[in-house]
Amino acid sequence: MSQAAEKSDQATALEKNMKEIVALCKRRGFIYQASEIYGGINGFWDYGPLGTELKNNLRDWWWRKMVLCPPIGPDGTPVDIVGLDSAIIQNPKVWVASGHVGGFADPMVDCKETKLRYRADHLIVFTPKDGQGSSIAVQEGDDFEESKARRFKKFAGKKTDADFEKRALSDIAFSEFANIIGPDASKPGTLTEPKAFNLLFETKIGAVASDDNVAYLRGETAQGIFVNYKNVLDSSRVKVPFGIAQIGKAFRNEVNPRNFIFRSREFEQMEMEFFCHPKDAKMWFDFWKEERQKFWQEIGLTKGNLLMREHGHNELVFYSKGTFDIEYKFPFTDPGFGELEGIAYRTDYDLTQHQTHSGTKLEYIDQTTNERFLPHVIEPAAGLTRGVLALLCEAFTPDPSRPSGVYLNFHPRLAPKKAAILPLTAKDGHPEIATKLYLELREEFPVDLDIKQNIGKRYARQDEIGTPYCLTIDNDTLKDETITVRHRNSMKQERIGLSNAKEFIRKGLESAAQ
Amino acid sequence: MSQAAEKSDQATALEKNMKEIVALCKRRGFIYQASEIYGGINGFWDYGPLGTELKNNLRDWWWRKMVLCPPIGPDGTPVDIVGLDSAIIQNPKVWVASGHVGGFADPMVDCKETKLRYRADHLIVFTPKDGQGSSIAVQEGDDFEESKARRFKKFAGKKTDADFEKRALSDIAFSEFANIIGPDASKPGTLTEPKAFNLLFETKIGAVASDDNVAYLRGETAQGIFVNYKNVLDSSRVKVPFGIAQIGKAFRNEVNPRNFIFRSREFEQMEMEFFCHPKDAKMWFDFWKEERQKFWQEIGLTKGNLLMREHGHNELVFYSKGTFDIEYKFPFTDPGFGELEGIAYRTDYDLTQHQTHSGTKLEYIDQTTNERFLPHVIEPAAGLTRGVLALLCEAFTPDPSRPSGVYLNFHPRLAPKKAAILPLTAKDGHPEIATKLYLELREEFPVDLDIKQNIGKRYARQDEIGTPYCLTIDNDTLKDETITVRHRNSMKQERIGLSNAKEFIRKGLESAAQ
Repeated sequence: MSQAAEKSDQATALEKNMKEIVALCKRRGFIYQASEIYGGINGFWDYGPLGTELKNNLRDWWWRKMVLCPPIGPDGTPVDIVGLDSAIIQNPKVWVASGHVGGFADPMVDCKETKLRYRADHLIVFTPKDGQGSSIAVQEGDDFEESKARRFKKFAGKKTDADFEKRALSDIAFSEFANIIGPDASKPGTLTEPKAFNLLFETKIGAVASDDNVAYLRGETAQGIFVNYKNVLDSSRVKVPFGIAQIGKAFRNEVNPRNFIFRSREFEQMEMEFFCHPKDAKMWFDFWKEERQKFWQEIGLTKGNLLMREHGHNELVFYSKGTFDIEYKFPFTDPGFGELEGIAYRTDYDLTQHQTHSGTKLEYIDQTTNERFLPHVIEPAAGLTRGVLALLCEAFTPDPSRPSGVYLNFHPRLAPKKAAILPLTAKDGHPEIATKLYLELREEFPVDLDIKQNIGKRYARQDEIGTPYCLTIDNDTLKDETITVRHRNSMKQERIGLSNAKEFIRKGLESAAQ
Repeated sequence: MSQAAEKSDQATALEKNMKEIVALCKRRGFIYQASEIYGGINGFWDYGPLGTELKNNLRDWWWRKMVLCPPIGPDGTPVDIVGLDSAIIQNPKVWVASGHVGGFADPMVDCKETKLRYRADHLIVFTPKDGQGSSIAVQEGDDFEESKARRFKKFAGKKTDADFEKRALSDIAFSEFANIIGPDASKPGTLTEPKAFNLLFETKIGAVASDDNVAYLRGETAQGIFVNYKNVLDSSRVKVPFGIAQIGKAFRNEVNPRNFIFRSREFEQMEMEFFCHPKDAKMWFDFWKEERQKFWQEIGLTKGNLLMREHGHNELVFYSKGTFDIEYKFPFTDPGFGELEGIAYRTDYDLTQHQTHSGTKLEYIDQTTNERFLPHVIEPAAGLTRGVLALLCEAFTPDPSRPSGVYLNFHPRLAPKKAAILPLTAKDGHPEIATKLYLELREEFPVDLDIKQNIGKRYARQDEIGTPYCLTIDNDTLKDETITVRHRNSMKQERIGLSNAKEFIRKGLESAAQ
């Protein structure tokens, strides 16, 4: 097989994997298309019973690691972080100060021929060096090379890159557009002038729907933290350095929502702003880069699927002194990676902006030295919903040897159900023992009780939802008070005492935690 | 003191109480006005470090009682309920089917003289029986009697109720408005015709801001459950009767947000839809009425402050076969009560609406009897943010005998911090022992470590945030490894072994739980 054919085969396999993951998510109640019975709504997703538990487990684990039990800092004492939950709708001035109203926009061009819309900064224009014929615009993305080759052939014979000058559309004056053929067009001159398209969703507040009443759905949870920085300082006992953490929904009116829950219009973030003295910022930046990588590894993302990528100078916003992305190798980015979390050194940009725009002094006064300063900020900002997607992709394990053909290899701590209690038959006293065990175990772990159906089908279901242990009650249980434990990954079975079930699961979770 | 004066005095005391609660919430980091540094935004609130933990505790307790460990049903087997987390933005057809687009509206009238706006159904009109003079409109509410008396005197001499015919403005034809004096107006004829004002916040989705792209922020979490009823049935193992539970934000563009977080524009709900056979609906309605009252009592709301109120026929929506509200005696409703949770028997109205509007069959087929039917629905719908307010009001306990003058008597399960670890001084090895104890305890409970400050001030702070136990490390700790426990409510102190601290708190929480 040629290398290209092999690569294409691999790509198809990966694509299929993603389709299978999406299908499993719907089939087993992890994630549904929002408003599905009404034909859906592009860019919005609903979390089913198991997806909700999985997402809650990731949410609670982050909260535990960031707010309830934050790590030990470089000086050997525990880091101080408090939680916050700010409103989705804030005074619109917040978003003016943050730069989102002015700058949180993508430049878009329309094609008058095809009615398609493109991000201007995603279009690459090839202009013939010999001045013969039109320029050819191609959309950056998965099939860039392929569609470029096709359109080179169609509009310029079999020319190669060397015959063209290559520029971004956003660098080209509109007067030149008349000679550019759009990515899906058949003739030049159909692309409109780029127009900024703001990603903030707008709404109007109060009884009068005038422009004075415009407000925005937050585009990120971070600003809710910055505007409460002073409130938190005044009402709690924190001292610099300290962090404020928040988990919550954010909204972006994406032009092309895609890749399942990876790029959706409504999503959840887990963000922490860490306020420190400017001279210590570099130390804390390094500290959080390490800690955040550990976090994702601890819950089961393998090192080979994680990448720490530093932003290049052209990616970096002007005020940032450095940003690292923790990226994950999703099936749809493979062999590349997609962002899971960003860790940014934001300097004092945000506090300065809000101090200026609000007219409220946000300086910190050190009680010991009497020094006044605006703290610098390190921001680890993770996607909760993207984290859920990474966990699903990581856990998805095809296995032709078992009836389900696949199992979800969740870290037990994240698994929606820690154990399933399965009476072998729905008679002979099995259901009664199972129900009693279920009532005992559910006090400590989320567990499933599934009484009727062929036992093989019930095992298959638990494999597909990633339950680490199946506990089966059978006739022997009546005789000697033992039950069968079936291990998810190995499918191995062993016999344990009914009264030891709780301790068995507890130990299993503890050993997996290390 | 006259009865009236006494009542007025009591009202002032209660009003003062509410002001003190709001002030404490801000001072100690429970709840802040949203966007405060920008002058706020009417009807929106941010939860500070302690408010977030308190709200999370109530959220998790509801989830535990409804999803992870639901109650035992009338037949002796555990009730089956699964969780869900649907998007805030759904296909707009959802809200057409639910009736919110057409009917989720308050009729509003404006006053052309004062520019004030009123809910038409909150205005009462008094028309002189003798036909002499104008009619007088008065706004229903706290000072209704007072303002009525004042305006009777001003516009109609000292006439009494008996001299007037009393009607709701919404029952009066607009042609009669010319003779009505608005509640704050000085002359008749200034009220406009009532106009429906929809409470759903609107936004627009996608790059083109046309009317085709209108969508709504959900006005309740319930509809997200109904539109996923079929998905849940198809992807999980639930059988009728079963419930689907959801916790999340909802938005209502209230004309007059008021009473702190009681009536805000962005709030959180905890709703469960219980699907059952029509013949069993009455039984489940009674069941959930009992269970939900128990829930609120278990977390510390006292019986005297709770009221079960049945909706009258005029309050009941046409499809409901009965609704009960669990009401709480808030300081601003005292001696009356305000809604905390509604338990409604909604029949098959919602599923019928969505079946008709979506064209998707939503019938349930009983596997045993082959009977096909649309399940009936019992809905316990609680306010999470209202629950937080009730917990704060209930816990607020003025006590002039202690330095703080007040303490929050939270049920330990709901208290944001279960214990505070306080080294007596910031030297002599006290902080080291305290930090070690903090690291040990935080693995199991949310605890506070507060090192510096006068111990009395630190106790006062813990009283104000409702921490059940203060653990103090002093010089005796160095000698005999004992610490002082100070109990929040009694302020009594006792000495326990340092190594027994975890077990002591664990037992304290368990005994409080019964």
